[in-house]
Amino acid sequence: MRLQHEGDRPNDGKRRQAVTVTFRPSSQSVSVPLGATLREAAEAAGVDVDSPCGGLGLCGKCMVRVTGAVEPPTDEEAQFLLPEEIEGGTRLACRVRVAGDVEAEVLRLAESDLHKILVSGMMPEADLEFEPPCKKFMVGDLGETLHETRTSDVEVLVAACDGAIETRSFNLELVRSLPERLRSGTELSVVHSERDVLGLTDATSRIFGVAVDIGTTTVVGSLLDLETGREVAIASRLNAQNVFGADTISRINFCSTDDAGLSKLHGKIMATLNEIVGELLQRTGAAADDVWEVVLVGNATMVHLFLGILPKHLALAPYAPVVRAPAHVTAGELGLKVNQRARLRTVPCIGSFVGADSVGVILSSGLHKADKVKLAIDIGTNGEVMLGSRERMLACSTAAGPAFEGAELSCGMRAAQGAIEKVRFDGDGVHIKTIADAKPIGICGSGVVDVVAGLLELGVIEPSGRIVTDAGTTKHLPGDIQQRIVDNNGEPAFVLYEDESQRLMFTQRDVRQVQLAKGAIRAGIECLKSLLGVSNEAIDKVYLAGAFGNYINPHNAIRIGVMPPFPISKVRAVGNAAGVGAKLVLLSQRARDEAREIAATTEHIELADLRSFQDHYMEAMLFPEG
Amino acid sequence: MRLQHEGDRPNDGKRRQAVTVTFRPSSQSVSVPLGATLREAAEAAGVDVDSPCGGLGLCGKCMVRVTGAVEPPTDEEAQFLLPEEIEGGTRLACRVRVAGDVEAEVLRLAESDLHKILVSGMMPEADLEFEPPCKKFMVGDLGETLHETRTSDVEVLVAACDGAIETRSFNLELVRSLPERLRSGTELSVVHSERDVLGLTDATSRIFGVAVDIGTTTVVGSLLDLETGREVAIASRLNAQNVFGADTISRINFCSTDDAGLSKLHGKIMATLNEIVGELLQRTGAAADDVWEVVLVGNATMVHLFLGILPKHLALAPYAPVVRAPAHVTAGELGLKVNQRARLRTVPCIGSFVGADSVGVILSSGLHKADKVKLAIDIGTNGEVMLGSRERMLACSTAAGPAFEGAELSCGMRAAQGAIEKVRFDGDGVHIKTIADAKPIGICGSGVVDVVAGLLELGVIEPSGRIVTDAGTTKHLPGDIQQRIVDNNGEPAFVLYEDESQRLMFTQRDVRQVQLAKGAIRAGIECLKSLLGVSNEAIDKVYLAGAFGNYINPHNAIRIGVMPPFPISKVRAVGNAAGVGAKLVLLSQRARDEAREIAATTEHIELADLRSFQDHYMEAMLFPEG
Repeated sequence: MRLQHEGDRPNDGKRRQAVTVTFRPSSQSVSVPLGATLREAAEAAGVDVDSPCGGLGLCGKCMVRVTGAVEPPTDEEAQFLLPEEIEGGTRLACRVRVAGDVEAEVLRLAESDLHKILVSGMMPEADLEFEPPCKKFMVGDLGETLHETRTSDVEVLVAACDGAIETRSFNLELVRSLPERLRSGTELSVVHSERDVLGLTDATSRIFGVAVDIGTTTVVGSLLDLETGREVAIASRLNAQNVFGADTISRINFCSTDDAGLSKLHGKIMATLNEIVGELLQRTGAAADDVWEVVLVGNATMVHLFLGILPKHLALAPYAPVVRAPAHVTAGELGLKVNQRARLRTVPCIGSFVGADSVGVILSSGLHKADKVKLAIDIGTNGEVMLGSRERMLACSTAAGPAFEGAELSCGMRAAQGAIEKVRFDGDGVHIKTIADAKPIGICGSGVVDVVAGLLELGVIEPSGRIVTDAGTTKHLPGDIQQRIVDNNGEPAFVLYEDESQRLMFTQRDVRQVQLAKGAIRAGIECLKSLLGVSNEAIDKVYLAGAFGNYINPHNAIRIGVMPPFPISKVRAVGNAAGVGAKLVLLSQRARDEAREIAATTEHIELADLRSFQDHYMEAMLFPEG
Repeated sequence: MRLQHEGDRPNDGKRRQAVTVTFRPSSQSVSVPLGATLREAAEAAGVDVDSPCGGLGLCGKCMVRVTGAVEPPTDEEAQFLLPEEIEGGTRLACRVRVAGDVEAEVLRLAESDLHKILVSGMMPEADLEFEPPCKKFMVGDLGETLHETRTSDVEVLVAACDGAIETRSFNLELVRSLPERLRSGTELSVVHSERDVLGLTDATSRIFGVAVDIGTTTVVGSLLDLETGREVAIASRLNAQNVFGADTISRINFCSTDDAGLSKLHGKIMATLNEIVGELLQRTGAAADDVWEVVLVGNATMVHLFLGILPKHLALAPYAPVVRAPAHVTAGELGLKVNQRARLRTVPCIGSFVGADSVGVILSSGLHKADKVKLAIDIGTNGEVMLGSRERMLACSTAAGPAFEGAELSCGMRAAQGAIEKVRFDGDGVHIKTIADAKPIGICGSGVVDVVAGLLELGVIEPSGRIVTDAGTTKHLPGDIQQRIVDNNGEPAFVLYEDESQRLMFTQRDVRQVQLAKGAIRAGIECLKSLLGVSNEAIDKVYLAGAFGNYINPHNAIRIGVMPPFPISKVRAVGNAAGVGAKLVLLSQRARDEAREIAATTEHIELADLRSFQDHYMEAMLFPEG
């Protein structure tokens, strides 16, 4: 895109030259006079451009991406578009004037279309109705109205909002600001969330929301434009609580043993969140005061620690949370550096081990609305299993342990640079691939699954989990493989990689850890299937959530028995489904209502209470026959 | 009452002596063994004693006032009764044991009876249904329940309250306190107000409310026991805002001209309230944390200043308040030294000059529920006039000016020691009565009405308001009266009192001030009558609210024309009706709902908008013919 300078502006006195505007994606072309706006061109071409303000530059909705000669950005465009958007050619059709032949891509389709596209990139099953609970309502300058009514400032504002807000939601601080603010002579908007007024803002200000996924290890935040639904930035950090323990149980213990434990852990997560928010704002140029709602997902421990609530009883029978979803928490109360009146919404938890993150997974993968039964598996330190349809939803947490996160294995590690993430066995031997193709320093979850599956296939590991060592059996193995079976301080092990300085092995003990982990998850799946009375064939889709689910080879996951032998076509990795859930709750009132419904109605199955669990577990610890 | 000492306790081994217990007010007598409880005696006598806990000493409701020999107070009694109550002979019938012949007055009738009696002393028309919106709900020790449920602490508590509270009303601070508090092994009660949970308290703690009437000049607070409805203490102070101006307009101006004006005035009223609350608590031994709700009345300016809201626009056209009744204000937000989670409720205002105090008057005098039209007049610097029935309510504010408060008259003063409060003219001359029978130093409102009425009757003041001076007219007056008509710097005046050091006069200018004041009020009454289309005869009752209304001679008020010539039997002084309104809103959900309804439906008549107002006003300034 070439920006013309002011000096290039066509002289209005002359007869105007005609130029051609071609619209994308429709390819309709039209000839318009030099200096016409693209909105005028679109009208002439019969191209539909979203323009609720009627072309006055007030709504910022008629976005187009322009290639070709146009005049420089107007003030209105600078208000609605980020500098980098303008740099990339995004303009408002009603403001931008053509200075030559131009191609214009209409960016804003009907809202519903747009957001299906947007979200589909993240989560194919999410059927987002873009109707954010946190919205702004343009009330304009109420000075004149105030001059004509005797009710009260509050009532004038409520009336101007046409039923969108309730009088009882005004807090005192906001009421105190009204007399001056409403008479300031400026155009105002009211920002509200689910009928509760949050505050006033200049009519031209943008409003944003932040969706946060607080993981035990990493925290991811997204900044979303609440007027368009667009995700404008993502930032992530390691959860600074890591210094007080790597998993939820050790953090809960820390709170129970150290009097200041809760306050320290709460402080760490707030610091992490403020860093993320700071980066989101800095990268987009958005103002902290323009962030009006924050939605969080996380496991119940993370949610408690974020809210500063003692999580001790999450880990004590009968394992109940203190609260599943608190109402009316503001950013100011927790010290989150966004608008101090912004509402903090935590996606509700189902129970102490099936948290807001599980609700996020169910919500974004649409299990709760499915006609046929679907299965979702979110594997972390605990593996959550969710099974059901719109008829009935079950969820359980399985004590998978951290084997699939690479922990507690002799050379296990997190999925970081140098971790073996893929392993392939063939006639040529063992092929490993590391993250960032760095020198191998350990193995992460997806690699573990590949190794175990490969060794099972080769017969190095027997269905019982035993690594074969007797010569009678090993002699049938390829020579390279035979050599890799070694004795490691009295237990058999398989050498994955070796160089002058190190030897990365997968030991018998490691195999046992994997058996425990995958056995727990598989037993959870089998228990839920049996409670719901469904066979594998009746399960229509299988969603693997989370980073682990995203990277494992589903064929190998089935080979080792993490899940039943589903046809691979039924299995789909859905990425950070919990985080997508948070975004849905931020962008859609319907999704928010559904999240509440999911938390209220999903049956939380305590596996330990089931008589059949031990049987399933013992059986699931074995590996399937080849 | 004589308390027996432990050593006097009858020996259980001996055959017990019989004693006589006589119950008041019924005079039923019964003979019981020495050492029996009064509850046992009441049962034997067939006397009904309120005893919902079944005589276990748990509810504190079976109060009796005892004369005669009884055993010393038990621990349970010490929990439920204040030391001064015990000192005065109040005991719990189920705990107190007789040690000789006894008379026992049953203090607690059926609740409805009790509270009619209680309130009737203050306000005959108030038909109080004792059902305080702020209540405690005994949930006991939930430890066991928590051990059996997996929902959440919040949900366990909500379930235990049986629908009395809503999950969404839990604030974060309260949620944070739950895990420890609910597992403390103590019996707990939940304190809530209108389905919003306020906090937890020990099951044995009492709960109190404070009703406050913030007057421009004086502030009165009452401490009420929310479990019995009893007013346990009253305290009052001058409004410390007085140093910044005596009336609302000067305080509003102070806020508009001094940047820190609002904060200074807000600070002063909070200091005044905290002094009052401190005295209420100190006198009763109640704990600040046991005060869970505060209800306030006052004019709109007082309400705004209390809430820290700029009142500037109350005094600028179109004279609208910022808010009529804010929701969700807590003591903590304003720094009121009661329980920091206590709710502050302001009785809603009708408009900027017809404030919460007027709603209080309507509510407590029952105009809004009356079958026949009633009139209420609350005379202060502004005289508020309320006219209507349950069909339709009108209210207006009249710019009476401060003449009836003694201000702006040559020798006017507030109703304080030395103020002439009553004046009587007879054949013997002029008889004055001062407050506290002190040496006269000025005249207050009730005295002013008497003086003007008396001088009209004598002919010293003509219907036009002129003080007669021509000899032809004055010669018909008694000699003493003639001598009192003097020339005061060129204007006629009437000498009320004279001694060696001073001369208290009522001047021609004073008469004019009274004409303006009474004319304004009367014009207000006439305008409302005409809007409602009622004659004097159709008005069933006339209530005079406020201190002024309480002390004036209604006959004289009619003589000077403050109000139409109603039969005196229709006129009733109702004291601090606004303050009673606050108590009603504290003690009765129905009254609270009615107050909201009154504020929402009462028509606020702006007299200046009425074409007929000037006519009425001119006419009303004249005095009635004798």
